[in-house]
Amino acid sequence: METKIVSRSGGVCAPTGFRASAISCGIKDPSSSKLDLALIWSRTPAIATAVFTQNRVKAAPVQLSANYLRADDPQAIIVNSGNANACTGPAGMEHARQMADVTAKALGIRRRQVLVGSTGIIGVPLPIDRILARIPELPLLKKTKDCRQAAEAIMTSDTVPKSAAVEINIEGKTVRLGAIAKGAGMINPNMATMLCFITTDACISKTELQRATREAADLSFNRITIDGDMSTNDTVVVMANCRAENRRITARGPGSRQFRDALNSLMLKMAKKIVSDGERVTKLVEVRVNGAASQLDAEKVARAVANSALVKCSWNGNDPNWGRIIHAVGYSGAKIKPELVDIYFDGLCATKHGIAHQNGISFKQLENVVSKRNFTIGIELNQGRADYHVFTTDFSPEYVDYNRREYAAPQG
Amino acid sequence: METKIVSRSGGVCAPTGFRASAISCGIKDPSSSKLDLALIWSRTPAIATAVFTQNRVKAAPVQLSANYLRADDPQAIIVNSGNANACTGPAGMEHARQMADVTAKALGIRRRQVLVGSTGIIGVPLPIDRILARIPELPLLKKTKDCRQAAEAIMTSDTVPKSAAVEINIEGKTVRLGAIAKGAGMINPNMATMLCFITTDACISKTELQRATREAADLSFNRITIDGDMSTNDTVVVMANCRAENRRITARGPGSRQFRDALNSLMLKMAKKIVSDGERVTKLVEVRVNGAASQLDAEKVARAVANSALVKCSWNGNDPNWGRIIHAVGYSGAKIKPELVDIYFDGLCATKHGIAHQNGISFKQLENVVSKRNFTIGIELNQGRADYHVFTTDFSPEYVDYNRREYAAPQG
Repeated sequence: METKIVSRSGGVCAPTGFRASAISCGIKDPSSSKLDLALIWSRTPAIATAVFTQNRVKAAPVQLSANYLRADDPQAIIVNSGNANACTGPAGMEHARQMADVTAKALGIRRRQVLVGSTGIIGVPLPIDRILARIPELPLLKKTKDCRQAAEAIMTSDTVPKSAAVEINIEGKTVRLGAIAKGAGMINPNMATMLCFITTDACISKTELQRATREAADLSFNRITIDGDMSTNDTVVVMANCRAENRRITARGPGSRQFRDALNSLMLKMAKKIVSDGERVTKLVEVRVNGAASQLDAEKVARAVANSALVKCSWNGNDPNWGRIIHAVGYSGAKIKPELVDIYFDGLCATKHGIAHQNGISFKQLENVVSKRNFTIGIELNQGRADYHVFTTDFSPEYVDYNRREYAAPQG
Repeated sequence: METKIVSRSGGVCAPTGFRASAISCGIKDPSSSKLDLALIWSRTPAIATAVFTQNRVKAAPVQLSANYLRADDPQAIIVNSGNANACTGPAGMEHARQMADVTAKALGIRRRQVLVGSTGIIGVPLPIDRILARIPELPLLKKTKDCRQAAEAIMTSDTVPKSAAVEINIEGKTVRLGAIAKGAGMINPNMATMLCFITTDACISKTELQRATREAADLSFNRITIDGDMSTNDTVVVMANCRAENRRITARGPGSRQFRDALNSLMLKMAKKIVSDGERVTKLVEVRVNGAASQLDAEKVARAVANSALVKCSWNGNDPNWGRIIHAVGYSGAKIKPELVDIYFDGLCATKHGIAHQNGISFKQLENVVSKRNFTIGIELNQGRADYHVFTTDFSPEYVDYNRREYAAPQG
């Protein structure tokens, strides 16, 4: 049975019992009123699961949240933008702890029921006093219709706030899932400077929620890449508060497939929003590898092509340069035979058996594909049956220019 | 005993008995007189060794040359620029073979005594008739003083021809080594769109020449990286013709250390010339990693930092952004402890124990380092005793712009 997944408004506030609010406390810019602190919480007890960055340099809030998640069942997330609280030493850990403490007190819950997120500049101490002073106001703010302000408050170099929600029906009960996310820059496998917070009113076992979260993250956030860098702060959290009153979802039990389909769909939607809004990129490109001897080989090829600076530059110039693509296939480390490789641009064969395809497809036709905002590069290795795909972007002169200077941060 | 290595003029023609010449045969541009075909040869029998690309997609001339090298002792190299003869199928192999055949006939030597090199656009058939017609003229051209024309003829997007020569004294005999090279774009470990041809009049055993060539390539061309891409055509060839009349150099015998020092020095000089002339780059940066648990870990860290798009963008902007550097250290895959990592800019400590160093070094001082044309990033992992270094560049908006379109090549 196909799950019917209906889009709806409300973002993280769409599921029953969830609230979100945001405020400006001058982290991004003391002289502006840009939102930079957000709170998302369930008014009743919840369970939560998370996927964190695989970077060995983990920001303080990531370390703290991973600990709290092992110790308790969180029902709130406090997040600031403008400062990553990363590479900030013991003081940074203390600041993250204080953010959780003050939030817990304001909500009347236990300290370890609060997860902490931070995104922004690395290596600079948080303006912690300004943050702690404003946290108590957050639960008191009037509820906005679509929780859009929370999505705004977690933005850094994003150009648009990112939120979405879906609803499904499980055994007659309406179950909702909502999300906000931020990305831009440094997006890569295993996620990077990427935050995504998902709420759901589903009633679901913790084991099943963990399984579903890992699966969905693997099919979405772990398959997007902009510049190959990985962040110290990446975090995906899913909180479930059981308010939909469906029969509890367990492994392979009723509703399990439907819930996972809905979560996969929502995370993929958020991942595509993130990659499309990468810093100064102009295209969203799917790189799809088929016929690999193993899935690992397929992944190596897909990532080598998706991260090749020269391939990405050529897309920016609307140049259907398959030579650079086969080049990246060749150095990917995967076992390939050049004379078996075929390359397609939105299904049009540019390369057959490793050389230019003599099939009447004109350069102009291929150029038309690469000139689009969205297209797919298909790579057929003809070595086996494994496949893999990733979503990536082009590389623009404006991206480099934008990243030449980070903030005007004084250091020392 | 320290080897005294003296720079001298003459390029590949500096060693006794070597000649080089170049001609325009309209591969780069049929309507211009740009040099695009070069011949380098020894007038007497020689031995040769080579290091080729590790890309699994190998251009026809690379495959052919590797075969000939196993079968005979080459004493000539024929090279064209403007077309890589890569991804050109069986016709490409036939063209490479014809280039060797015609050259061998013109020089009166055996076919397998000729190695072939090609660099330029991928996937387009060579204009083989124009090339074969002009090859016989090459041995007849008047000798120019410094063989500069051969260096010019192998250029693609290089802005300057690259050549150098050195001389050493072994047991009273003067031994010379000369080189020409081309690089630009796509330079990475294991070399990329990189050609380097070295001549020497040393008398040396083949085994010792192989050992010296591998060592020198590992310490030079395998340590430069511009954009992380690897070419299908990379080739380093060293030819030795014994005309210096020194006692034959064998493993650990007299002159062995001196010859290797000279070859290392010459290859490193050529590698630095290549990386400095990378497409639209403005800086040459050494990334030096110390205190790693293993050499592989040190290499992983050095390459992750040297290839990080965000790190390279920040250098272009003169931004001493150590946050992005420690970030790349964290995702390198090496075993590191963030709280032990120190980062230096030309010896000035920016990061101590993984956080901003509070030592009175000002942001301005660090900015002054990154504003230079050459500087060193030192990364101390404090995990062990292994080290590694690579040479890399910044990433400029102009680099991306330059690489948006390759040639105006019609395909299909």
